[in-house]
Amino acid sequence: MARNSSSRSKKSGLSPGSLVHVGRRKVDRPRITLIDYDGEHFLEKEVESVDECFPFNLTSTVTWINVDGVHDPEVIEKLGKAFGLHPLILEDIMSTAQRPKLDDLETSFYVVARMVELSGRGTEIVTEQLSLIFGKNFVLTFQEEPGDMFDPVRERIRNGKGRIRKLGPDYLAYALLDAVVDHYFVVLENLGDRIETLEEELVKNPRQETLHRIHALKREMLMFRKAVWPLREVVAGIAREETPVIQASTNIFLRDVYDHVIQVIDNVETYRDMLAGMLETYLSSISNRMNEVMKILTIISTIFIPLTFIVGVYGMNFKFMPEIEWRFGYFLVWGVIIVVGVSLIRFFKRKKWF
Amino acid sequence: MARNSSSRSKKSGLSPGSLVHVGRRKVDRPRITLIDYDGEHFLEKEVESVDECFPFNLTSTVTWINVDGVHDPEVIEKLGKAFGLHPLILEDIMSTAQRPKLDDLETSFYVVARMVELSGRGTEIVTEQLSLIFGKNFVLTFQEEPGDMFDPVRERIRNGKGRIRKLGPDYLAYALLDAVVDHYFVVLENLGDRIETLEEELVKNPRQETLHRIHALKREMLMFRKAVWPLREVVAGIAREETPVIQASTNIFLRDVYDHVIQVIDNVETYRDMLAGMLETYLSSISNRMNEVMKILTIISTIFIPLTFIVGVYGMNFKFMPEIEWRFGYFLVWGVIIVVGVSLIRFFKRKKWF
Amino acid sequence: MARNSSSRSKKSGLSPGSLVHVGRRKVDRPRITLIDYDGEHFLEKEVESVDECFPFNLTSTVTWINVDGVHDPEVIEKLGKAFGLHPLILEDIMSTAQRPKLDDLETSFYVVARMVELSGRGTEIVTEQLSLIFGKNFVLTFQEEPGDMFDPVRERIRNGKGRIRKLGPDYLAYALLDAVVDHYFVVLENLGDRIETLEEELVKNPRQETLHRIHALKREMLMFRKAVWPLREVVAGIAREETPVIQASTNIFLRDVYDHVIQVIDNVETYRDMLAGMLETYLSSISNRMNEVMKILTIISTIFIPLTFIVGVYGMNFKFMPEIEWRFGYFLVWGVIIVVGVSLIRFFKRKKWF
Amino acid sequence: MARNSSSRSKKSGLSPGSLVHVGRRKVDRPRITLIDYDGEHFLEKEVESVDECFPFNLTSTVTWINVDGVHDPEVIEKLGKAFGLHPLILEDIMSTAQRPKLDDLETSFYVVARMVELSGRGTEIVTEQLSLIFGKNFVLTFQEEPGDMFDPVRERIRNGKGRIRKLGPDYLAYALLDAVVDHYFVVLENLGDRIETLEEELVKNPRQETLHRIHALKREMLMFRKAVWPLREVVAGIAREETPVIQASTNIFLRDVYDHVIQVIDNVETYRDMLAGMLETYLSSISNRMNEVMKILTIISTIFIPLTFIVGVYGMNFKFMPEIEWRFGYFLVWGVIIVVGVSLIRFFKRKKWF
Amino acid sequence: MARNSSSRSKKSGLSPGSLVHVGRRKVDRPRITLIDYDGEHFLEKEVESVDECFPFNLTSTVTWINVDGVHDPEVIEKLGKAFGLHPLILEDIMSTAQRPKLDDLETSFYVVARMVELSGRGTEIVTEQLSLIFGKNFVLTFQEEPGDMFDPVRERIRNGKGRIRKLGPDYLAYALLDAVVDHYFVVLENLGDRIETLEEELVKNPRQETLHRIHALKREMLMFRKAVWPLREVVAGIAREETPVIQASTNIFLRDVYDHVIQVIDNVETYRDMLAGMLETYLSSISNRMNEVMKILTIISTIFIPLTFIVGVYGMNFKFMPEIEWRFGYFLVWGVIIVVGVSLIRFFKRKKWF
Repeated sequence: MARNSSSRSKKSGLSPGSLVHVGRRKVDRPRITLIDYDGEHFLEKEVESVDECFPFNLTSTVTWINVDGVHDPEVIEKLGKAFGLHPLILEDIMSTAQRPKLDDLETSFYVVARMVELSGRGTEIVTEQLSLIFGKNFVLTFQEEPGDMFDPVRERIRNGKGRIRKLGPDYLAYALLDAVVDHYFVVLENLGDRIETLEEELVKNPRQETLHRIHALKREMLMFRKAVWPLREVVAGIAREETPVIQASTNIFLRDVYDHVIQVIDNVETYRDMLAGMLETYLSSISNRMNEVMKILTIISTIFIPLTFIVGVYGMNFKFMPEIEWRFGYFLVWGVIIVVGVSLIRFFKRKKWF
Repeated sequence: MARNSSSRSKKSGLSPGSLVHVGRRKVDRPRITLIDYDGEHFLEKEVESVDECFPFNLTSTVTWINVDGVHDPEVIEKLGKAFGLHPLILEDIMSTAQRPKLDDLETSFYVVARMVELSGRGTEIVTEQLSLIFGKNFVLTFQEEPGDMFDPVRERIRNGKGRIRKLGPDYLAYALLDAVVDHYFVVLENLGDRIETLEEELVKNPRQETLHRIHALKREMLMFRKAVWPLREVVAGIAREETPVIQASTNIFLRDVYDHVIQVIDNVETYRDMLAGMLETYLSSISNRMNEVMKILTIISTIFIPLTFIVGVYGMNFKFMPEIEWRFGYFLVWGVIIVVGVSLIRFFKRKKWF
Repeated sequence: MARNSSSRSKKSGLSPGSLVHVGRRKVDRPRITLIDYDGEHFLEKEVESVDECFPFNLTSTVTWINVDGVHDPEVIEKLGKAFGLHPLILEDIMSTAQRPKLDDLETSFYVVARMVELSGRGTEIVTEQLSLIFGKNFVLTFQEEPGDMFDPVRERIRNGKGRIRKLGPDYLAYALLDAVVDHYFVVLENLGDRIETLEEELVKNPRQETLHRIHALKREMLMFRKAVWPLREVVAGIAREETPVIQASTNIFLRDVYDHVIQVIDNVETYRDMLAGMLETYLSSISNRMNEVMKILTIISTIFIPLTFIVGVYGMNFKFMPEIEWRFGYFLVWGVIIVVGVSLIRFFKRKKWF
Repeated sequence: MARNSSSRSKKSGLSPGSLVHVGRRKVDRPRITLIDYDGEHFLEKEVESVDECFPFNLTSTVTWINVDGVHDPEVIEKLGKAFGLHPLILEDIMSTAQRPKLDDLETSFYVVARMVELSGRGTEIVTEQLSLIFGKNFVLTFQEEPGDMFDPVRERIRNGKGRIRKLGPDYLAYALLDAVVDHYFVVLENLGDRIETLEEELVKNPRQETLHRIHALKREMLMFRKAVWPLREVVAGIAREETPVIQASTNIFLRDVYDHVIQVIDNVETYRDMLAGMLETYLSSISNRMNEVMKILTIISTIFIPLTFIVGVYGMNFKFMPEIEWRFGYFLVWGVIIVVGVSLIRFFKRKKWF
Repeated sequence: MARNSSSRSKKSGLSPGSLVHVGRRKVDRPRITLIDYDGEHFLEKEVESVDECFPFNLTSTVTWINVDGVHDPEVIEKLGKAFGLHPLILEDIMSTAQRPKLDDLETSFYVVARMVELSGRGTEIVTEQLSLIFGKNFVLTFQEEPGDMFDPVRERIRNGKGRIRKLGPDYLAYALLDAVVDHYFVVLENLGDRIETLEEELVKNPRQETLHRIHALKREMLMFRKAVWPLREVVAGIAREETPVIQASTNIFLRDVYDHVIQVIDNVETYRDMLAGMLETYLSSISNRMNEVMKILTIISTIFIPLTFIVGVYGMNFKFMPEIEWRFGYFLVWGVIIVVGVSLIRFFKRKKWF
């Protein structure tokens, strides 16, 4: 987080629309793939130069150009010119710390969403910016690095099964957003599992370490929430638009995505509440343990300190101490010690300290 | 919770409208029952195959088809085709972790509600998804497993008493929702009783166990709230619709359900506040007990440590110690011990530690 | 609370509009009183049977029928029929755990409010449901038990002073609501006094008992708030209605009640903030006391434990211990003890522990 | 607070519009001053009887009547009749625990604001109710006691400088509200200074007393906030009104007051946050001090308790104890004592307890 | 903060529109610079007297007059007269504790924003008020002191690159606001870095000092938030205006600034959540350390207090004590000591205290 917003500051003072990459550079050179289809035909290829894409812009088929890597201003600018995008949109594509949002560009729509994935060993959440632009007959997607959750969509286009080949770019845009939101559930599941593990740990053996992990999880939840929450408004926004670009039949699908986003948010809120409860449990279990420690100390001290006093008395060296001379003095003292000790133990038993 | 959302992830990447069951499979095969009635006639039967239902769809009588078990895509699909339901609706019916919602399907309405019940020994809340679709002359309900709170409604239809036989499917839909909401009060009562029990325990004998039970109750409350809260908007939504499917006379009934939902929410919020207060009481009672422990330790230590010092003094072996030789040295020391002890006890009495 | 909502569950499964009493039965048989008046004439009587009331319904005078006790379905039903009330309204009248609300019944209005009173020795708040229905020429009120805050209103009607006799049932309805709200201030005053008493106790002698009383007060505040808060929307709702039943001149009076309700809510919120602050004070005073206890323990232990060590050294029985033989060894040790003791006392003085 | 709301209860049961004074009576008899002006002429006098004011009501000049003391129903009623005020407004004027509000009286406006002042030695906030009514050609103000922040406004009218003499009663009303709001900044400054003082005290020497002062300040802030917060809506409300009484040119001034009110609220919220932070600091500084105490106790006990054990061993009187006979036994024990002591001190050094 | 609001009080009682400087005086005399440009020509000069600016007001070129220092009423008044500004606006310009806001002056707009900068060694945030007025052909900016973040904008105008020279004063106003918002990211980065540093310190070595720094950071965050939050509404407000002063093409740029403001707010909220989490961690780490201290004390006391009792027993001087005479009594006692010691150590091992 701090990393991203910090690098954002290098743009400070530049003219608006300046194409400067903000974020970590994750690939060497952008990789561009093109899928072009309609009900009858289908074409998929990896393109070397942006110019190869331009002819497809003129046809009435649906053209989906996907760019992996957004650090190269040249590529972004060429595509922007070809599809008539405002410089500020291009700037946003290259700034990878955007918040999900929807921009109505009159003949097309610009959607920013955040793809959320689990890093390496599934213990950390990483988010990646997805810029999605769709218009009359094209869909552009920009990702920070290769590897995404769109392969099932690609497969559906290739196979020509289902309705995707028969419908327009608005449906493709929906399908992509749906894939992003669907993947949120995978992340949710991971978070849910980790919360459960933590809960067990909390009951069995709460340590300072546990607290750190609760806080780490809380922070990931925060990050996840930041990625998902604004998407709700974005999807609702698309559904509200009245535009020839989006067909009426797509609306029910958008509402479906909307429901899913709400469901994710709902779960995140529940998890947050659960984590808050876990923090309380942790803190009270520390108090309890302190109580336990104090009890042991008190029991031992309260029993032995008076006894030590008693034996101390008869360790004194006074010339004249009648008890010392008694035949059974020593055993009497033992008797006193046992009586005192037992009464104190009983006292603690009655207080339910054992 | 975590269970449900986790299984949701297996749908990730599938085409929208794919009929995959999400949730625990609770029955072997779906059980379908059909009730068909109007003011004059009444028919009730358990059907073997979905096709038996179709003729009833054409008549002007009210047809209520109830399906227990939503894991079989074939059944769902056939019914969906017969009643012209969108594939996404069918998908929602099979995904049993939905949030209560209302979808306007133009000629019919799709309502998701959650039935809340007490499991086994009444110590846990379980929720079950109810999908309810009602149109011009039919009502479809889908439940996850057999056993529901609709028997009184069935009885009212069978007896032909009251207004239910005279009114349309919108009234039946209301009656079913009303039954669901009415059952919330049974759950509320159980929660209220458990809170009272916990409160007594908290005053009499607060233990770490008590804390865990407060948190468990809090979590159930959370779950219950999640099931009820969105229903408010759903019921208000139905009442707002202007459609021939819902007759004006049904509106006052819907407003009544709405009032009940609000009342449930109100009580849940009060319970949440009460649980929060109980947590505070628990934590402060731990502090109090620690205080108690510390006081005992302090009293004992403060009295006996100085006394032990005094007797230690006369345990020294110096050749030349005048007091040792005194005739009443020993008794003098006892005098000093008693004076010191009594003054300390008085000191603590004045501090109101006893 | 739990009591009321629990008994609510016995209605679960009944047909809507079923007249079942929910709540504690507080009287043997309903007591019905009738007041009929206009500018010129005035009549007041206690009626035996509901039927006696019906003739008054036809006259153009204002008829106020008050029923104490809502457990008898027969009475309620008869009145309902006479004044054309929907069965659901009758059901609501008998369910005494309603939340304040306003129902527009087209030719009349149904208002639920909660009368708040202090029980027995003024240490507990009890609420009672008031159902108020007013139409073109009648006002019906239903209370759970006899005894209310309406006597001043009755007196004003009897005396014929003021504007009440000249105005219609809408003004009477206002006057009754105003009496209910006015009584809230009496309860507020009681709560305020109890908070002040608690505050003094908190400063002088905070005990575990004090905490329980803070929580009890908090809960009563919660209950009071639940009774008052929704009334705000109810009163605003009546004022917003455009209907011949409510005359324009009554609006300024309604706005006045509205202001009073807001003022009550305002005070309740302030009291809640004050109670929250008192909880904080209580908890920190426990910490302070623990600190105090620890300090005493530490001072005593820290002074005497080293001294006990010193005297212990010379209690050893070694054959060869030079100091033992010294002429002034014993006094030297006393010197050391005094020096050590005084330095420790100074150390604590410098730390400001005394 | 409790005082005011309590005395409110004595009105319970009275007919609406009954003129009963609520609040502390602060003056012997109301003092009425009258200022009458337009661009050319100016008159200021103290009037004996209300009737002296009436002729001015007929002229087209701006008439400002100020009444100090609102406990005399006769005065209020006469003025009310002369300026056509509704009895409920008169009632509100006499009830001095009103919340700031705006009532549109068709030909005039009734504004309640609260003047906030510092009492005696500037350590307590007191609020006083200002009732302000302004119409076509008059402004009435009612205060609880003499002495206000309006002298600069009077001075501006007397001098005839600035625009006040050229503009109407709406501008005068604005000027008075502006004076009230301006004075809030004086109070804010005082609160800010006291917070700073408390902060320093908190860092240097936090005591139980400090906590009480934080809470006292918090409560004053609460009271101040209650006086200011609703004023925001009041001023916005006046600006929104479309009425001949308020000239378009006054709107920009009202917006200015509005900005100031927001600024005050903003600062109050910041102060509240700061006080909350101070509470946290206080509580954690108590914990820290307890930690400190515990450390000292632990260091001393942990070092000397084992040493006392060692010397205790050689205080035993066994007939056969080889070490006792050794030539250097005593010095050896000293050696052991020093080694143990030094290692323990090192242990604590490594734990950074010194 | 307290400083600013306090000095605000010196205006109390003055006539509205009185030009009194509120805030710290930061420069000797105002410095005025003028930039005048259109697509073709460009002029930049520092002016001595305000009058030099007036001719430029008549031309159709864009005139940007920047004033550093707002304490001189004469300068402000002259400029105000020249550009037809209302006295209240001039008053606001001179009061430097304004909250960001937008005033629609019909033919021009008045925007207050707060420039946020890092003071001296980058450890404190200071805010400075920027008053920005833009109309048909002019932009006025007022700052409290020289030195701002506008140099890149000036450079772009000088160079004539980009679109700035071709567009009107609305675009210049946007460019200035954009520069202000862009600089927020620099501050955010600094805050983020400091939070990270604090987090490391918190894990490695939490001290009372750390707490103070968390609170200091929290307060700066509060201040930053207060500066940024209202700007959101300001920018949205400008974008909503329908006026010839703002061209449609500028709207997309305003939306871009709006997105940036939201992003800043988002980050601030996240930082606040993180700081809250850090406070919790700090408090629980204090508890943990106390626990640690208590454990050491308890282990040592619990082991040695009973042992000291044992050796005390054989330090008694009874004439008749059989064990004393035994040949191996001494070694037996050592055996008992070792057995007791080892069992206690094992007990603590089992409790996982080591």
